[in-house]
Amino acid sequence: MTLLDFTHDPALTSWVESANEPDGDFPIQNLPYGRFRRAGTEDPLRVGVAIGDQVLDMRLAAELCPWGDGIEDLLQPLAAGDLAGFMNLGPQAWRAVRGALSLALAAGSDQGPFLETCLLPRTQAQMQLPCTVGDYTDFYTSLHHALAVGRLFRPDNPLLPNYKWVPIGYHGRSSSIVASGSPVQRPRGQLKAYDASPPVLAPSRRLDFELELGALIGGSNALGEPVPIESAEDRLFGLVLLNDWSARDIQPWEYQPLGPFLSKNFATSLSPWVVTLDALTPFRRPFTRPAGDPLPLPYLDSPANRAQGVFDIALEVWLQTAAMRLAKKPPQRLMHSSSADAYWTLAQLVAHHTVGGCNLRTGDLLGTGTLSGPGPGEGGSLLELTEGGRKPIVLADGEQRLFLEDGDTVILRGFCQRPGARRIGFGPCHGTVLPARETVTPA
Amino acid sequence: MTLLDFTHDPALTSWVESANEPDGDFPIQNLPYGRFRRAGTEDPLRVGVAIGDQVLDMRLAAELCPWGDGIEDLLQPLAAGDLAGFMNLGPQAWRAVRGALSLALAAGSDQGPFLETCLLPRTQAQMQLPCTVGDYTDFYTSLHHALAVGRLFRPDNPLLPNYKWVPIGYHGRSSSIVASGSPVQRPRGQLKAYDASPPVLAPSRRLDFELELGALIGGSNALGEPVPIESAEDRLFGLVLLNDWSARDIQPWEYQPLGPFLSKNFATSLSPWVVTLDALTPFRRPFTRPAGDPLPLPYLDSPANRAQGVFDIALEVWLQTAAMRLAKKPPQRLMHSSSADAYWTLAQLVAHHTVGGCNLRTGDLLGTGTLSGPGPGEGGSLLELTEGGRKPIVLADGEQRLFLEDGDTVILRGFCQRPGARRIGFGPCHGTVLPARETVTPA
Repeated sequence: MTLLDFTHDPALTSWVESANEPDGDFPIQNLPYGRFRRAGTEDPLRVGVAIGDQVLDMRLAAELCPWGDGIEDLLQPLAAGDLAGFMNLGPQAWRAVRGALSLALAAGSDQGPFLETCLLPRTQAQMQLPCTVGDYTDFYTSLHHALAVGRLFRPDNPLLPNYKWVPIGYHGRSSSIVASGSPVQRPRGQLKAYDASPPVLAPSRRLDFELELGALIGGSNALGEPVPIESAEDRLFGLVLLNDWSARDIQPWEYQPLGPFLSKNFATSLSPWVVTLDALTPFRRPFTRPAGDPLPLPYLDSPANRAQGVFDIALEVWLQTAAMRLAKKPPQRLMHSSSADAYWTLAQLVAHHTVGGCNLRTGDLLGTGTLSGPGPGEGGSLLELTEGGRKPIVLADGEQRLFLEDGDTVILRGFCQRPGARRIGFGPCHGTVLPARETVTPA
Repeated sequence: MTLLDFTHDPALTSWVESANEPDGDFPIQNLPYGRFRRAGTEDPLRVGVAIGDQVLDMRLAAELCPWGDGIEDLLQPLAAGDLAGFMNLGPQAWRAVRGALSLALAAGSDQGPFLETCLLPRTQAQMQLPCTVGDYTDFYTSLHHALAVGRLFRPDNPLLPNYKWVPIGYHGRSSSIVASGSPVQRPRGQLKAYDASPPVLAPSRRLDFELELGALIGGSNALGEPVPIESAEDRLFGLVLLNDWSARDIQPWEYQPLGPFLSKNFATSLSPWVVTLDALTPFRRPFTRPAGDPLPLPYLDSPANRAQGVFDIALEVWLQTAAMRLAKKPPQRLMHSSSADAYWTLAQLVAHHTVGGCNLRTGDLLGTGTLSGPGPGEGGSLLELTEGGRKPIVLADGEQRLFLEDGDTVILRGFCQRPGARRIGFGPCHGTVLPARETVTPA
């Protein structure tokens, strides 16, 4: 058994008792990274590792615990609160530190007494974005999403001819990326009904979520130097949940010919814990293209990419309306899907993004695009679940939704489980819709 | 006469003699900012102000020259090499420093003897990007460009119905923004002829330039707080020339439905000297929409926006082929246009970008989109000048071009002149096309 295999062993338990509860997101097999501030302080951000209901404060852990074997150097960026600096070190460093953390947090570890003093209850950690995102690219990897949206707008020709050849993507907005828990203000924008003219500036009436995964890049390729598919996964540090909030009524009027702009750039929410690709290894699944589909072009194909396959992450969207919150009713699940249904692998996204020479830098974010499944109730957006805003969702308390209303809280969840592996999860990505501003001009 | 008016006085001369030559880009009326490294050193970047054929080293100038009147505090970010820090101070600070620099560099100034030792010949300053660009947004403000491109692809319906209502824009790639002088490697990408299948990965055969201006943002609005049109210009520090290199054969196959991606993100070149809006004030020109066009929606309209009008900047693209360089022939001008022909003002771009709550941050870049004029020979791209790659340009040495060839150097130029004002210029933005990489996979 290699050290990396050891970190996945489902029998492995931790001396942090809460990590051993069967349905938790953060057992010792997970060990996701995040940045936090201690509640009630203005301290600089620190890097933490989630373990059970605790956070291991990596500044204290680097200082107070004996490590050795070259690990101490690798911990320096984590000790400094610089998760991006650690992401920049590359996969060998990531794996060495994963192994060391796994040994140190395992039941019976000699390091336990040192690390016990470095724990903080997760409730006392105010989570922030894991890093500053330089460039954010959003892809469109779900064939089911592309088909569902295409059917709404082009019933006779739902799938564009490039879809099975090109991993479609476009550039998103970095400045408005926010951490889970940040409220999301309903945007105003130009709205134009098909039968009305002229357009009016008004709050969006068709505010939606989009369920995505976000991949954070570690390491940088020089401008002009593509990342070959064979090593593309080495550039992926880990994954977060991503809500690509969307204004469906701003989008159709603005998006021709250059793509979505204000309909998307008012907010993008990320879950705070970065689940590493190394933690996700037990949840790979082979991917084969449906019979009759074209093979990927050679730059998007390799034995390694075929062998690595896709990650099978169960994804869910939950909704809690203001009325439900008042009545102390729990959130209600709206949909579920799996990341394994995407048409393109993460490695293919990296290879495609860089094939023309574009440089990816540490901290860049790649969104998968809405991850919808093939069946009913598997749409990753209200647009899909309500068939274009025509068929309302009826909630358990009798409320109906076509799109989001003010006070609605949207919660994304993601987790992996299969026989023979310990379940791991992402923790929630949530945000509550605030009303639009009264006017554009400040008082 | 206010101090700002004084800085525009065409009779004003400098004790830096080269600044007084009549056709120079950098007289005392200009005073653009840039970041540079002294040739042959690995020193940290410094901020400089171009004056004639010299650069005023602001680190030395802040240290060695008496300033007073609160100016010294404002010079601190400039002294530290942090142009973005200065851009963040806002228009009052920008104007105070412009006034102080103008007085100090004026013929007869008492500060001359101190500042003389702070000059560096421009040839010894290796210019870099003026700042780190956070988010880069590219607009589509030239009606003439939109019409010309539309005519190529939709002869019966060249202008989309949103054009005169929405300042169309989309998010660009920040990581591949490079300073003038950086070579530009021809990208590979998926190419698909209309009559061929399947697509192939190959070097672009339709590599093009796009002549644009870039506006650099100073100051930040909070997420969710729009910038009203009345104060939008206060967020614009200054302008640079921008070449939005484009692969015309990658774009049509990839861009539906989310917009251009790899066809644009392999390189974007900026000229290094930021010409401030304050320097451009004498070159404002009223803008009136053509009769019959809709009025802008109220959030895009204000008395100030109408009074400020547009900037009349003469723009040109020049080409020097490898053969011309070998034969020691100078570059040849391919086109000319004016920024005053744009359909949207810069203030309108800021107001539109933020109306849904998107936050602009210091150092963000707004591209105008290709600035084409209405007449023949005024297209801001080869796509337009060659009528979609059908009608070659014949150069003076007999060479022909439909699109760019390896070894071609593209030079953008921009300058302002009118009776009663001193001519100012931007300095060139140039880049030379390198051949595509042999293969995608590195050795």
